[in-house]
Amino acid sequence: MNAADREWMHRALMLADCGRFTADPNPRVGCVIVRDGHEVGVGVHWRAGEAHAEVNALQAAGDAARGATAYVSLEPCNHHGRTPPCTEALIAAGVGRVVIAMEDPDPRVCGGGADRLRAAGIAVETGLLEAEARALNPGFVQRMERGRPWVRIKSAISLDGRTAMASGESQWITGEAARNDVQLWRARAGAILTGSGTVLADDPQLNVRRSPTELAAAAGLPESPRLADLPVRQPLRLIVDSGLRTPPTARILQGSPTWVLTTESAAAGPAADVLRGRGADLIVLPEAAEDAAGHLDLQALLAELHTREINELHVEAGPGLAGALARAGLVDEWLVYQAPLLLGSGGRPMVDWDIGRMAERAELEVVESRWLGETLRLRALPRGVPNSL
Amino acid sequence: MNAADREWMHRALMLADCGRFTADPNPRVGCVIVRDGHEVGVGVHWRAGEAHAEVNALQAAGDAARGATAYVSLEPCNHHGRTPPCTEALIAAGVGRVVIAMEDPDPRVCGGGADRLRAAGIAVETGLLEAEARALNPGFVQRMERGRPWVRIKSAISLDGRTAMASGESQWITGEAARNDVQLWRARAGAILTGSGTVLADDPQLNVRRSPTELAAAAGLPESPRLADLPVRQPLRLIVDSGLRTPPTARILQGSPTWVLTTESAAAGPAADVLRGRGADLIVLPEAAEDAAGHLDLQALLAELHTREINELHVEAGPGLAGALARAGLVDEWLVYQAPLLLGSGGRPMVDWDIGRMAERAELEVVESRWLGETLRLRALPRGVPNSL
Repeated sequence: MNAADREWMHRALMLADCGRFTADPNPRVGCVIVRDGHEVGVGVHWRAGEAHAEVNALQAAGDAARGATAYVSLEPCNHHGRTPPCTEALIAAGVGRVVIAMEDPDPRVCGGGADRLRAAGIAVETGLLEAEARALNPGFVQRMERGRPWVRIKSAISLDGRTAMASGESQWITGEAARNDVQLWRARAGAILTGSGTVLADDPQLNVRRSPTELAAAAGLPESPRLADLPVRQPLRLIVDSGLRTPPTARILQGSPTWVLTTESAAAGPAADVLRGRGADLIVLPEAAEDAAGHLDLQALLAELHTREINELHVEAGPGLAGALARAGLVDEWLVYQAPLLLGSGGRPMVDWDIGRMAERAELEVVESRWLGETLRLRALPRGVPNSL
Repeated sequence: MNAADREWMHRALMLADCGRFTADPNPRVGCVIVRDGHEVGVGVHWRAGEAHAEVNALQAAGDAARGATAYVSLEPCNHHGRTPPCTEALIAAGVGRVVIAMEDPDPRVCGGGADRLRAAGIAVETGLLEAEARALNPGFVQRMERGRPWVRIKSAISLDGRTAMASGESQWITGEAARNDVQLWRARAGAILTGSGTVLADDPQLNVRRSPTELAAAAGLPESPRLADLPVRQPLRLIVDSGLRTPPTARILQGSPTWVLTTESAAAGPAADVLRGRGADLIVLPEAAEDAAGHLDLQALLAELHTREINELHVEAGPGLAGALARAGLVDEWLVYQAPLLLGSGGRPMVDWDIGRMAERAELEVVESRWLGETLRLRALPRGVPNSL
């Protein structure tokens, strides 16, 4: 593969990213059809249940697809899911070559798409810009490969690492630019997780308040008229609440679906019925063997979210729940907004986590740093914890 | 003043910076002599007691200085100090115009140098790149204008704002690149301040272990053969130690002068004599009216350091002493090395400082951020606290 191949694949990845806020629970996928060095059709997978990127690109290319090369960010599907297999569409269009960034990690398909194309006499190459392609869909890949969502913890801290005053007062540590940025991370997630303590302290809505067009513009994605037709996709909202402390009047219970995660006994009590009456789904989780926030088994929660097709889990919670996830090795990404402030040694920590010795410290790798006004946003991945990237 | 003037003044500031590690306790000053658009001589003030930058530049220019313009980063002195006044040298050389970045804040001189030049018929302009010129000499300027040194606290923290484990274990939070960088900040300071707790925990030397040539190279300053002739300038070392807990075998007592700052009663006891026997100077400070680290009056310490011509005070201390300085509003600059680690909620804080309400938080302005390997170095100035910049 040569420099031109790389450039076309970059374009396919950029197109895939156009589905950042709308494709879920499907992966974000983009496709470019190139003939004689010219782009003859592009496609984005906009929304689950609608056409895949390859089909959109082939439709745009029409007859020009014959003998052309298709660059696609994810291996074309070879199964009848919500739509017919893309492999058949590529074969029917007479495409001569298919370049694939990453193989489909979905066990229903894995490798089968490329094999089907090859069997039809199409030249197939895979692995071009594979790391970039995986990073577009950390949740989808993680779920297929490891059976649980990608867990991203958002944390707003001061320079001295505090998330709130001792009283719990935390509004506002970061500036408006950072708070707007948080909207983009909520909007790409399949679900948003918080704890009952945060619900009681801040009464957050934890919903998405921007249209797909506004989100794309804020994220610097290309404009597309298609975005205007797409509804706001509200992530599922989840409250870890073993004691059912969530007030029936909490704003998080309004609007889109909200799950209250609790124990079997709590779910059988009258407080559970009150919350059900407010529209909440009560989800029973086993209690954790070891100490965990709310004493619920967070591994079991992630397994449950896997079955519900939650790719990316966005966590906005206090140090207790953040610490429980960290102690269990379940954090895949830290999204840290650091404000130029000192809140002092009485302030609340970023994570409740008693690490006794320096040798047991949690090492991170900062993969991106960016200024949002006066707030520094750092994205960091744990070292030594397996994840899909 | 035009673009060429700015460029020449930039050059004078760059020359001034060549004295970063050697000029103290004098200010860092640079001078360029320009005639008919060409540089005919440059000068650096290398070392207290030696020629000032203007004199070095005039000597390099020789007869070419007649009718030329001198760009100087600080107003030429007009008094007989360690050397004769630079004003007389400029007048004698027949310079036609003098452009000055900042007026001399030294009350012995302030404004007098420019007036003397004007009285001799020389065109004088001031204020070109003044902010940059002040930033070269934060300590000298602060001392002249506010009667105390510039206080810079170095802090090595994790992402969650911890400086050590609960046990005190702290080696190593940051990487080698960051530790090498710390050498540059120690080496530019007039004194280094620590507390007896840090001496007991880490037994640091707090000295400079690089030659002026090595320091200049590490700081990216221009090479100069003159640097090779200059000795290592060891900052004064200061231990806040009201209880005289510093062990006689502490490494900080070896080599260059070390002051042990203590109370009157402690200084009269036998432990004081042991430390004196190890070469330490025992300095008595009043006890603080309010709670402070070691209960010593830190304002009185800074006043004392002012009389000893300490321009920049570099602080490497634990959260107690850092917090005492912060609570007293005596911190001018935070030099924070942030490593991609989590040390957990049991770790020691960056500052012992009980800030009760969000409204009382300490706001900072980040003036520089830079990656040193995997460690992020942030330099931040407090907002709302008067300083000389």
